[in-house]
Amino acid sequence: MAIVNERGFPLYDMMGYHLGWRGAHALDGDLPRRQERMHGVMTLLACTAVGGDADACLPAAAAMELVDKFAEIHDDVQEGNPQRNERDAVWWVWGPAQAINAGDGMHALGRLALLRLADRGVPDERVFDVVRLVDKAGLRACEGRFRDLEAQERIDLSVEAYMRLATDKTGALLGCAMQIGALVGGAGAETGNALATCGERLGIALQVRSDLAALWGGNGNSQPNVEVLNKKKLIPVVYALENATVSEKRALGEIYFKRVLESDDALKLREVIDGLGARAACEKMADTLKAESLAALEIEDVAPEGKSRIREYIGMLTSSR
Amino acid sequence: MAIVNERGFPLYDMMGYHLGWRGAHALDGDLPRRQERMHGVMTLLACTAVGGDADACLPAAAAMELVDKFAEIHDDVQEGNPQRNERDAVWWVWGPAQAINAGDGMHALGRLALLRLADRGVPDERVFDVVRLVDKAGLRACEGRFRDLEAQERIDLSVEAYMRLATDKTGALLGCAMQIGALVGGAGAETGNALATCGERLGIALQVRSDLAALWGGNGNSQPNVEVLNKKKLIPVVYALENATVSEKRALGEIYFKRVLESDDALKLREVIDGLGARAACEKMADTLKAESLAALEIEDVAPEGKSRIREYIGMLTSSR
Repeated sequence: MAIVNERGFPLYDMMGYHLGWRGAHALDGDLPRRQERMHGVMTLLACTAVGGDADACLPAAAAMELVDKFAEIHDDVQEGNPQRNERDAVWWVWGPAQAINAGDGMHALGRLALLRLADRGVPDERVFDVVRLVDKAGLRACEGRFRDLEAQERIDLSVEAYMRLATDKTGALLGCAMQIGALVGGAGAETGNALATCGERLGIALQVRSDLAALWGGNGNSQPNVEVLNKKKLIPVVYALENATVSEKRALGEIYFKRVLESDDALKLREVIDGLGARAACEKMADTLKAESLAALEIEDVAPEGKSRIREYIGMLTSSR
Repeated sequence: MAIVNERGFPLYDMMGYHLGWRGAHALDGDLPRRQERMHGVMTLLACTAVGGDADACLPAAAAMELVDKFAEIHDDVQEGNPQRNERDAVWWVWGPAQAINAGDGMHALGRLALLRLADRGVPDERVFDVVRLVDKAGLRACEGRFRDLEAQERIDLSVEAYMRLATDKTGALLGCAMQIGALVGGAGAETGNALATCGERLGIALQVRSDLAALWGGNGNSQPNVEVLNKKKLIPVVYALENATVSEKRALGEIYFKRVLESDDALKLREVIDGLGARAACEKMADTLKAESLAALEIEDVAPEGKSRIREYIGMLTSSR
C-alpha cells in the first residue's frame, strides 16, 4: 500500500481507487464490497507451501497484484467495460486517456516492487529469474488480450484456440504468481513449473466460469452482461458455434453479423446456446481444469499443510465465481 | 530488432510498424523517411564517453528505445494524434484498444531487454540499479503525461509548472538513457548524475523546440498542428498567458474557453502570442536549456573525444527540430 500511497499525487488516486482503497475523487463513500487479491495470495501460498518465508515474498506478491490490476485497468478501457467490482471503472471516472496512465504507472510500480526482493535476502540470480518470469507473463497476458480483441470481429474461433487465448490472457499471470512464489520460497525449477501449471489451469478455469457468469449471470443477476453485447467470444458461444447444426449456425451468424448487439440479441443468443447444451459442457470444462490444477499440486516438495491451504483457497475461488 | 521480430505474431507487427521497420498490414510501401533513435544513441554515447564497452551496453540502449517508443504509442492514443513521423499513428491503423496492447507489450519487451545486461558481464548490483532507474524514469514520464493531460483543461499553468511537467514527461527518459549508459560503462554515481542532468536538460530543450514547431511549423509546414487544436499547453502559450495584459488574457481566454478549437482559432491564438514576443522568449529558453545540457558534460570522467561526440549529436538534434 505504501508503494502506491507514498507518492501523494493525483495519478495515484486513480490507482488507489482501482485497488479498492478509496472512492473516486477523494470521496470515501463508494468503497467496493469485495476486492479480490488472488494473485498476491497465490504468490504467498506457493511460497509458504514450499517452506519459504512469506515476509521475504511480500514484494513479489505486491508486484503480482499490481501487474494484474494494471492489466485490468487497460482491459476495461479496451473492452469499454463501464464497471469493475460493481463500481465505475477507472476510465469511466477519469476518462480513457488518464486510465492508460494509471495502468502504465501501476505497471512500473509493480516492477519497482519486485526489485525489493533483493533487499530481503533473495539471491541476485533468483531475483533476475523472477523479474524475467513476470515480464514474460505480462507479455503473454498482453498477447492474449490482443487475440481476444481480434476474436471479437471473428466467428470461427475454435474451442482449442479459445483455450490457447485464455491460457495467455488469464492463465499466464496466475501461473507466474505461483511459480515466483515457489522460487522465492527456495524451490527448484521443477517444483516452480508444477506450481505454474497449478496456477495456469486455475486461471483458465476461472475464465471459463466468468464467461458462464457473463451469459447466465452471477450474483443473482440473470441478464447477459456487457461482455456479451461486446461480441466477446465467451466459451459457451465458442462451444456452440463449433457444435451447431447448419441452421443453428445461421441463427448465431445472424446475431453476430450485426455491428452492435442489443439486449434482445443477447437473449436470443442465449436461447440458441442453451439448446446446444453449451452450459453443461462448459461447466464440465471448468471442473476438468480445476481438477488439473489440483493434480499439479501433487508433488513431493509441497508439504501436506501447504497443499491443503492451496486446495482450500482454490475451492473458495471456484465456488464464489 | 530480434527482440521484437522473434515472436512472429501480429501484435509485433504493430510494434515493428511504430519502430519504422515495416508498413501497415505487412505492406512495405510506407516506411518513414526518418526514424529517430535518440534514446538508444544517447545511452551508447554516454557509455563509450566514460570508457565503457558499447557492445555490453546494447541491451540498455534497446531497452531505452523500447520504453520511449511505448510511451509514444500510448501518448498518441491519449492525445488523439493521428500521425507520428509523417505516417498514421498505430492507433489510427489498428484502433486505440490494440494500440494500448502494442504499448504494453513494448513496455514488457523493454524490461526483458534490460535483463540481458547480466549476460554481458555487467555486475548484478549494477543491473539492479539500472532496472530501478529505468522504472523510476518510466514512472516519472507517466506522471508527466498525467499532468500534461490535466493541463489541457486548465488555463493557469505557469512557466515554472510547465518546466516541471516537461522535466518529467520528456527529460526523465533522456536523462535516464545517459545515466544508465554511464553506469553500464562503469562510471561512478556522480558522473551518472551529471550525465542524467545533461540528458534531462536536452530533453526539455527538445520539448520546447517541438512546442515552437507545433505553433509556427517545422519542415516547411506553417500551419499550427493538431497539438494546438487539442489545447495542449505549449510553452509559447504558457508564456503568453503569464505575460499577457488583461485584455490580451481575455482574448486568449475566449479562444481557450471553446470546447474544441478550429484552425481559425489556432491562427488567432498565434497572432496574440506573436504580439507578446513569446516566440523569441521561448527560443531563448531552448538555447539556455541546451547550454545547461552542454555544461553538465564538463566533468573530468568524460574523455574529450566522448564529449565532442555527444556535443555533435546534441547540435544535430537541436538544429533539426
